Amino acid sequence: MREVSIIGIGQTDVAEQWEKSVKELAYDAIHAAVADAGVEPGKVGALYVGNMIAGQVSAQSHLGAQIADFAGYKGIEAFTVEAACASGGAAVRAGLMAVASGMHDIVVVCGVEKMTDSIGEQVTGALATAADAEYEVDQGATFVAINALLMQRYLYEYKVPHSAFAQFSVNAHKNAMSNPHAMFHMPISTERYNKSAIIAPPINVMDSSPICDGAAALVLCASDMAAKYTSKPIRLIGSASATDSLALHDRAQMTVLSAVELSARQAYEQAGVGPENIDLFELHDAFTIIATLSLEGSGFAPRGEGTRLAVDDEIAPHRRIPISTRGGLKARGHPVGATGVYQVVEVVTQLRGQAGDTQVQNAKVGMAQNIGGSGATVVTHILSV
Amino acid sequence: MREVSIIGIGQTDVAEQWEKSVKELAYDAIHAAVADAGVEPGKVGALYVGNMIAGQVSAQSHLGAQIADFAGYKGIEAFTVEAACASGGAAVRAGLMAVASGMHDIVVVCGVEKMTDSIGEQVTGALATAADAEYEVDQGATFVAINALLMQRYLYEYKVPHSAFAQFSVNAHKNAMSNPHAMFHMPISTERYNKSAIIAPPINVMDSSPICDGAAALVLCASDMAAKYTSKPIRLIGSASATDSLALHDRAQMTVLSAVELSARQAYEQAGVGPENIDLFELHDAFTIIATLSLEGSGFAPRGEGTRLAVDDEIAPHRRIPISTRGGLKARGHPVGATGVYQVVEVVTQLRGQAGDTQVQNAKVGMAQNIGGSGATVVTHILSV
Repeated sequence: MREVSIIGIGQTDVAEQWEKSVKELAYDAIHAAVADAGVEPGKVGALYVGNMIAGQVSAQSHLGAQIADFAGYKGIEAFTVEAACASGGAAVRAGLMAVASGMHDIVVVCGVEKMTDSIGEQVTGALATAADAEYEVDQGATFVAINALLMQRYLYEYKVPHSAFAQFSVNAHKNAMSNPHAMFHMPISTERYNKSAIIAPPINVMDSSPICDGAAALVLCASDMAAKYTSKPIRLIGSASATDSLALHDRAQMTVLSAVELSARQAYEQAGVGPENIDLFELHDAFTIIATLSLEGSGFAPRGEGTRLAVDDEIAPHRRIPISTRGGLKARGHPVGATGVYQVVEVVTQLRGQAGDTQVQNAKVGMAQNIGGSGATVVTHILSV
Repeated sequence: MREVSIIGIGQTDVAEQWEKSVKELAYDAIHAAVADAGVEPGKVGALYVGNMIAGQVSAQSHLGAQIADFAGYKGIEAFTVEAACASGGAAVRAGLMAVASGMHDIVVVCGVEKMTDSIGEQVTGALATAADAEYEVDQGATFVAINALLMQRYLYEYKVPHSAFAQFSVNAHKNAMSNPHAMFHMPISTERYNKSAIIAPPINVMDSSPICDGAAALVLCASDMAAKYTSKPIRLIGSASATDSLALHDRAQMTVLSAVELSARQAYEQAGVGPENIDLFELHDAFTIIATLSLEGSGFAPRGEGTRLAVDDEIAPHRRIPISTRGGLKARGHPVGATGVYQVVEVVTQLRGQAGDTQVQNAKVGMAQNIGGSGATVVTHILSV
């Protein structure tokens, strides 16, 4: 299999971008990435779009062809990849396979989501389509409620207080301060976390990522051609996707995300590394409980002990396993179908040494993990200088 | 690039399947394909699902993980591919790249769509998301209306009478008679075509494919491993996807589908064949005008002369270029996201010599072409014994 590298990254601000449509957000991210790569537009062979809810909230499917055309690439192969909140990570998989197979030499992967330009109920309904319609949503559960069940069970099984999750949120908000593309530039305290309004008990506002708009893009290139474009390509050395049941009740153990374990293990094997070699980890902190379960399933903490990393602040940029170094889903924001691409953009930023105040020193190997639904799709990528 | 073959096919009946959900339809097609291939379930490395409207009409996104789990493959990589009505063809591309890259040795591709279990307006709205929301749909055009503009322009430019399209429909209904999976087992006459109710002038009911449910599946395998499973693998010798503007007014010439030309040319080049070598062609006759434009763009007729092939009945199974040999979108039915996979299943059926009354004699090379929107995404596959 031919090795693939990332030679360009681009992103829009994550924000309430009322004045931009789906295709306009995508345009901005794609043009930034292609300019960053220094690739002539005619060399781009295909576009893979990660998106979850445009059909439902913007009445626009068929984003592949539309964005390819609008961005100036009319004619190239283009399609949309959807795996709920892991759509971005899955789109990276499609791009990787396209280049690894030899089908294309250079491709663009763009994750994009537009959530604000619709009524609130519509977005809540659209996000709930990530869960099992018959077994969960028809029974009255929103997507937050499902994650709340998961968190409640975790608190019960491991006798952990809710306040043990505070530092996930505090760390994310602190790191976002130096990321100009982050949604929130507002540090928060443990006290504020503890006093935040409850959304679905025990999940409060500060446990949760925001509704927002954004797009991020990558230029992927066969590694043996990357030197033509950049002196510092970032190699994709591990990539694995795994799945689980959508509905919580169908799983062997609610507080174990088996697809996280499977996907991380396969990615480690491919890359020939283990958790001890990962210098930073952009994980899927859509809710603080998911951050915890991602750390545990990926081998950074034993089951039931993920929150200890937060309590001891081992997750800060200069500590044992830096996470959410650019703000994470909590504070950079979580434009659902774009998130998996933002994560990879941020790992590349770190491995290039361009992360400013939150730069992880001597970062050589980074990991990104994108999670769909309450753990039913997990895509893990390991990148290396 | 490692060559890929099809070693198993499966399909449900195309019909109004009120008693089956999306995942149940997919289950039936996948199990039929895996049984046909004789592959042990544990060997299936990934599932790529072609679907367009489940998020909108069934409130269920995240089909990849859900169907993988429901079909008994919990854990494997799975995601959904969407390119409007070309979602099935695009999913075949994803499966092909997964195996060609060496990422997986054996994968399943499943196209599935459930259209009947919702109110009519919902389906009409969902299908319209294939078109440009701002430039076309917001101006009041349904998806049929957009195709009607295209047909009207064709009639005007080439001075062809509407009745010249009749045989596309007559041929499709005739061929469907011997396909047990087809929706309609009802031959129609030219007279009936000419007298059919108008939907959007000049498109009438018999120009149009029906709203229906169905699922089709393929098992793809590295060609060098295919002999373990079957004595008659069908090789994928050409595969190319191309795009165009979504909105008709953005195109250089309305009556030329440039993405058809581009995709067909690339597929021919890869396969080392030309239109003269194609023994049968499963084209995208969602509307008779699209069948015409597909024949012209793929090199079977000069521009403006596609209907002559119909008028002269050169499209019958024993004539020059057999099309819609199992009923096509018109009479087998057009469960949108599944159609591209049905087409490939049918080409395989022909190349295996299992097409019964509509068997194309000595069929060695077949082509399938799946079209999204009014020509904005086109995926062409060429298969060979």
